[in-house]
Amino acid sequence: MTVTQTTIQPMTGELRILAALRREPVDATPVWYMRQAGRCLLEYRELRKKYDILTMQRDPELSTQVTLMPVERFGVDAAVLYSDIMIPLEGMGVPFRIEPDIGPIIDHPLRTEADIANLRVIEAEEATPYVYDAIRLIRKELANKTALVGFAGSPFTLACYMIEGRPSRDYGKAKSFMYGQPELWHRLMTTLTEVTIRYLRGQVDAGAQAIQLFDSWVGILGPEVYAEYVFPYSTRIFAEVRAMGVPTIHFGTGTAGLLEMMAEAGPDTVSVDWRVPLDVAWERIGSEKGIQGNLDPTVVLAPWEAVEPRAEDVIRRAGGRPGHIFNLGHGVLPETDPGVLAHLAGWVHERTSRAQQVSQVGR
Amino acid sequence: MTVTQTTIQPMTGELRILAALRREPVDATPVWYMRQAGRCLLEYRELRKKYDILTMQRDPELSTQVTLMPVERFGVDAAVLYSDIMIPLEGMGVPFRIEPDIGPIIDHPLRTEADIANLRVIEAEEATPYVYDAIRLIRKELANKTALVGFAGSPFTLACYMIEGRPSRDYGKAKSFMYGQPELWHRLMTTLTEVTIRYLRGQVDAGAQAIQLFDSWVGILGPEVYAEYVFPYSTRIFAEVRAMGVPTIHFGTGTAGLLEMMAEAGPDTVSVDWRVPLDVAWERIGSEKGIQGNLDPTVVLAPWEAVEPRAEDVIRRAGGRPGHIFNLGHGVLPETDPGVLAHLAGWVHERTSRAQQVSQVGR
Repeated sequence: MTVTQTTIQPMTGELRILAALRREPVDATPVWYMRQAGRCLLEYRELRKKYDILTMQRDPELSTQVTLMPVERFGVDAAVLYSDIMIPLEGMGVPFRIEPDIGPIIDHPLRTEADIANLRVIEAEEATPYVYDAIRLIRKELANKTALVGFAGSPFTLACYMIEGRPSRDYGKAKSFMYGQPELWHRLMTTLTEVTIRYLRGQVDAGAQAIQLFDSWVGILGPEVYAEYVFPYSTRIFAEVRAMGVPTIHFGTGTAGLLEMMAEAGPDTVSVDWRVPLDVAWERIGSEKGIQGNLDPTVVLAPWEAVEPRAEDVIRRAGGRPGHIFNLGHGVLPETDPGVLAHLAGWVHERTSRAQQVSQVGR
Repeated sequence: MTVTQTTIQPMTGELRILAALRREPVDATPVWYMRQAGRCLLEYRELRKKYDILTMQRDPELSTQVTLMPVERFGVDAAVLYSDIMIPLEGMGVPFRIEPDIGPIIDHPLRTEADIANLRVIEAEEATPYVYDAIRLIRKELANKTALVGFAGSPFTLACYMIEGRPSRDYGKAKSFMYGQPELWHRLMTTLTEVTIRYLRGQVDAGAQAIQLFDSWVGILGPEVYAEYVFPYSTRIFAEVRAMGVPTIHFGTGTAGLLEMMAEAGPDTVSVDWRVPLDVAWERIGSEKGIQGNLDPTVVLAPWEAVEPRAEDVIRRAGGRPGHIFNLGHGVLPETDPGVLAHLAGWVHERTSRAQQVSQVGR
């Protein structure tokens, strides 16, 4: 068989997604799903009957088991560490719990200068050794066939939870703290940035091959406020992780007003949600960045006939340009049919395989 | 006293806001607050100890009393009918209740073709006579000093609640219904549009002087999906209300990706939230439209020193152009200090008075 200019040797999932994160040509568009290791899977729900969430996340073997669940099942190109963005708080001396159907709860939220002064910054290996043990185990299991994405919550998102004490629609307490006590806010963000960098360095040292920063709630800010209260910290994290030698992804939702600045903060790839068409978003973040997304996670709750045209729209807007990673615009919803997710991953690979693209040039 | 070109005779609140809604010059920027008649007021919370929410909204005298509470207290230019966007469902044969701290609950959400076929469309006066009685009472009390804004929830927002059954972060059931059963979706939206037009005609006939359409959750949609599933219905409502002879306001949150289309749907004024700077938003919706907003409601939870520079930023971006109505970007949060809201309304009037603007030309 002659390899033509426009076809590419078949790649493992690992090579495929790592190439896309460097904006290099790939044999097919890589796919993974945020929150792919979760309640949509029966085998996960079964395990959850025996263990609570934090018990599983603190146990390297259990966390490895859950991380691997969707890999074969969905045929995705990346595994993502089964963990929670709140985990780094363990080493900071801030007790929290994860309430099913609600989210993280902190019984004593941060409110005062003393609360912030008392936050501890310790060695990552000392704070959360089980995270790094899990990463080493998972890499061994993945055997260089599937990539492992590590992650952290952004300092902004963590600060919101730490001040608010729980998930909220408005984050009124957190934001009024930010507006009303900017000096304390910056002190808190500086501490969280340092902890996050240590946490991510530990993950990279243990074998994480890409890092996603989850700035999940950043869409509640306008651009000027983002620039003043968040941007400097995200910028510092991306610079540090870049120096560790792994590619980075910057995730947020509701970011239609922030895309340019999220790109400017320095990630290799920006993850966008469905509120902005993928080509419009790519134009705004710039062609020198990769893009991840952006199917609406509620679309995959519908039957496949309704999913295909929406997925096709994402692929069409990506236009075969190197640097697109197919994903949902936010995490998999618990009620999602895993069969649809598996079918979708296969469909994306097939629909974007280089051989197929060649045959479609004339369309 | 000589009236110079740049000063304007003092206006009542009613004239001020109605002029701004026609994009005519005003003596000062008009102000009101969404959800100004609510839990931030002690006198409201006292009344709520005696009556539940729907009892108050179904009683013209009580609803008048609550509607008037913030008028003197805050010195706003408009009263807004104390009611709930769910009220039109009463005439449709869809029972619902309002759970404090949660929101509207429908025990039997719409799911099937039969559920949608069974929705009733009756005369507005027959469905919700107390709403129109309240409007007549309120207009009498306001005595042409303060304007009365009437409103309705948009068909999209109502459909979300009717299918989902309760407030949700994702509206996964509602959106997957929309994606998966588009024909039923359009049938439901057509019915809700008809009911909404009748409901608003009743309000205008009774004396509402402006109408705001609350498309509160529309920001969960991308622009193509909005265009297909929502836009035609909003457009029809604005055309009908325009024909009734009152100005219209189109409200949504998280609409950074939708502003142009929300303007194109035909309102006189677009209400924008704090996620897009006011001048950027105005540029996008077009100078032939008015703009309402857009202070972050969490800003007014902070002390006044933190509020003033943010309010100043809104005023500066409005640039004294006719057609700006000062408001928050979303409803008043229950924990807001009413004193801050009163101070802010006075500050906006003073800061934007034409006399003052003249003296600041040289700055």
